[in-house]
Amino acid sequence: MPPTTDTPLLLSTLRSALPDEALLTDPAALAAHSRDSAPFSACGTPAVVAVPRTAEQVAHVMRTSYALGVPVVPQGARTGLAGAANAVDGCIVLSTAAMDRILSVDPANRLVRCEPGVTTRRLADAVAEHGLTYPPDPASWERCTIGGNIATGAGGICCVKYGVTADYVLGLDLVLPDGRRLRTGRDTVKGVAGYDLTRLVVGSEGTLAVVVGATLALRPARPPALSLLAQFPSLKAAGEAVAAITAAGHTPSALELLDRATTEAVVDLGRHRLLRTGSAATLIVESDSADPSADLTSMELLCKEAGADHITAAATAEEAREIIEARRLVSPALAAYMASRGGGLTAFIEDVAVPRSALAELVGQIERIAGHHRLQIFTLGHAGDGNLHPTVVFDESDPDESARARSAYDDIMEAGLALGGTTTGEHGVGTLKRDWLERELGPVSLELQRGLKRLFDPRNLLNPGKVVTA
Amino acid sequence: MPPTTDTPLLLSTLRSALPDEALLTDPAALAAHSRDSAPFSACGTPAVVAVPRTAEQVAHVMRTSYALGVPVVPQGARTGLAGAANAVDGCIVLSTAAMDRILSVDPANRLVRCEPGVTTRRLADAVAEHGLTYPPDPASWERCTIGGNIATGAGGICCVKYGVTADYVLGLDLVLPDGRRLRTGRDTVKGVAGYDLTRLVVGSEGTLAVVVGATLALRPARPPALSLLAQFPSLKAAGEAVAAITAAGHTPSALELLDRATTEAVVDLGRHRLLRTGSAATLIVESDSADPSADLTSMELLCKEAGADHITAAATAEEAREIIEARRLVSPALAAYMASRGGGLTAFIEDVAVPRSALAELVGQIERIAGHHRLQIFTLGHAGDGNLHPTVVFDESDPDESARARSAYDDIMEAGLALGGTTTGEHGVGTLKRDWLERELGPVSLELQRGLKRLFDPRNLLNPGKVVTA
Repeated sequence: MPPTTDTPLLLSTLRSALPDEALLTDPAALAAHSRDSAPFSACGTPAVVAVPRTAEQVAHVMRTSYALGVPVVPQGARTGLAGAANAVDGCIVLSTAAMDRILSVDPANRLVRCEPGVTTRRLADAVAEHGLTYPPDPASWERCTIGGNIATGAGGICCVKYGVTADYVLGLDLVLPDGRRLRTGRDTVKGVAGYDLTRLVVGSEGTLAVVVGATLALRPARPPALSLLAQFPSLKAAGEAVAAITAAGHTPSALELLDRATTEAVVDLGRHRLLRTGSAATLIVESDSADPSADLTSMELLCKEAGADHITAAATAEEAREIIEARRLVSPALAAYMASRGGGLTAFIEDVAVPRSALAELVGQIERIAGHHRLQIFTLGHAGDGNLHPTVVFDESDPDESARARSAYDDIMEAGLALGGTTTGEHGVGTLKRDWLERELGPVSLELQRGLKRLFDPRNLLNPGKVVTA
Repeated sequence: MPPTTDTPLLLSTLRSALPDEALLTDPAALAAHSRDSAPFSACGTPAVVAVPRTAEQVAHVMRTSYALGVPVVPQGARTGLAGAANAVDGCIVLSTAAMDRILSVDPANRLVRCEPGVTTRRLADAVAEHGLTYPPDPASWERCTIGGNIATGAGGICCVKYGVTADYVLGLDLVLPDGRRLRTGRDTVKGVAGYDLTRLVVGSEGTLAVVVGATLALRPARPPALSLLAQFPSLKAAGEAVAAITAAGHTPSALELLDRATTEAVVDLGRHRLLRTGSAATLIVESDSADPSADLTSMELLCKEAGADHITAAATAEEAREIIEARRLVSPALAAYMASRGGGLTAFIEDVAVPRSALAELVGQIERIAGHHRLQIFTLGHAGDGNLHPTVVFDESDPDESARARSAYDDIMEAGLALGGTTTGEHGVGTLKRDWLERELGPVSLELQRGLKRLFDPRNLLNPGKVVTA
């Protein structure tokens, strides 16, 4: 039962410390901010969308929430895929999108301080000017915000070599549910003073505190990369190539897998010169080591030995880009497929991770699940870290197909857990996977998780109903 | 006020599930297990030392503690330097040293599963047989245990390139204070299912749960390394060399600093052919990149430009080892210095971290603090990550010198914080730094830290009085 919001009182209280332009109440704005990019996830209509520009304004929003008992739902760019940013009825949506300043780039200490609303792309560009790189590269990196990346613990393609968002967050400036400020972490590379509140907030999906600033670690600029494209007659062969690459001690900067359906969709798009039809799986391998050419020659041989029947290795940066383009074309290829089915379809991008060695097995099971439910599932995966994104394409207006899509999703989660995996590698729990979370974690963990939520948010006002129920 | 322990009841309850040889009660064993390696830290006498061999036996110890209200203090190899493993009067010391099995090495997924009592050295050797490496290398790595490394979030020399213990812990098997079992984390590289309990327990110094098993990430074996030794006429010059190495995008696998006193102590030991007397600071730089020779040539030039007046670059693996030996000789050199002062002295190894750019400034301040308090302080540091270990050598039997050593310690902490640093980079809080922790974190963080402790350990029976007071 959502709280009944006294909207005039709420608005007048918010207005006492926020300018008019920072408070959106028109129905179009409320609708636009009602949800993120996840299907199958319930959402409500906010009473107001607050777009603060300062941490103090965020604190005022939180104090207002606390005083009036009105829930707050933080939002970044709403590119999330688990419903973690979905509004609840009568809430304040707190968008941090306008807090988008890069406060300082510190090359001597290889770190950057920024506000949560800066996009991943803009941050990456800003630090590149100093010969540095911020590696996490979620697919939505041009639009998604650092605050959202921190909230979800976002991953990406190069994580297989460089790690995920959590590995780069040194410290956080936070506003707690009651409006108090909290600084966690540090500006130093190392530090073990007390329990790690920084890491607790990373991936907490805006349920424990609102991120109003972050100190992020950087790395030296990545060296130029080369890449290769290898197509396989069977999933098993592709899985063996991944295992052989790992066993040989390689650490590619990308190791992506396209299953049969995804490979065909990209071929059908007709915009990739190198990709051939008829393969059970395609691997895209990138190396940005000191000697990528030698690395790729070795990995090419391993792909051949595993049974690859079509390999293109890039000798130049341009060819390398052309190969990587196959990965980037997946999204337009799925869009084209959906258009060819007459449009109006939903793409449900899933997220499951298994130990690397179980990857090919899971891809095969997903293909069988697709067949069983008479669905088209396109599986694209970060093969190097065992993280797959099966995309179920279905017609939401068709109740039967929707139900089958939902069942397929459950079967995929089940298969992932049975293979020793997790129901979310990098997209998060949100509302979508709350039931699965309970199953994955078990009752003892869940009790502690709920205790953590109550510790930070005793009145259950900050992003209620996400991750765990209080 | 420590609890009054009914020792006969405690022992009979423990004996109901633990064999006699797993329970030590002789005074020598109790005394030996009363503390870790930190001076200035209070400790008590345990009622019994339990040395379980299985997780179920650990659970029995915890259930006994919970039922009888007797505190438990977990211990590994007692090499800790913050008093986190110090006994409290009447407690059960729970040594995990006998739980020392390596359960499985999994090269396909680059991970290892082990019990907490295995030493870091033995784990490193075991995974090396599979062409893999477990990088964290605390100074005590030959003796310290993985459980202790996890409890303290241990660092080491190669962390500057490879990260600290926390970066390698994928999942934990835990026993909670009430005896319940909890599995956190996962066997997958990525995963964001729920709040990160694994990371919360890492570095919690045995105050939240007892580690009975761990899943650790591994890396491919490190390539052969080369190294160079550079001596500087001023601290400022050494600091500039570190900054220049960072700015040029190098990531050495070791970047260690010896201050003037430490350099002289190693020279005086007379066992290092290359180290010269009269330098304000010495840098030891190691590279294990794909082309360490080219890397070191570039770093050598940067050291020269910064003002180094004596540089030896290794051309062979043997020369590289000889250079690194200067770092290894610091401990025997300090021992020799202490013996030369007639023995009976205490070496108080401190731990403070600042942003890398403030390193030289902090070393200079420490030298001034030593002068002010008429003490000999030897500063050795992980210069690459801004983490310094000033070692105060003093006579504990001399109340005045002890008081000055204690004051110097406080001054060093103060200086570290004032430079934007932390009072512990990798040794932990224990009992030694509890007061400083409160100052570093501030009241809001401390309230949450205490709440976390209460959530996991509502009766305050697991390692009470460490990190935070409940």
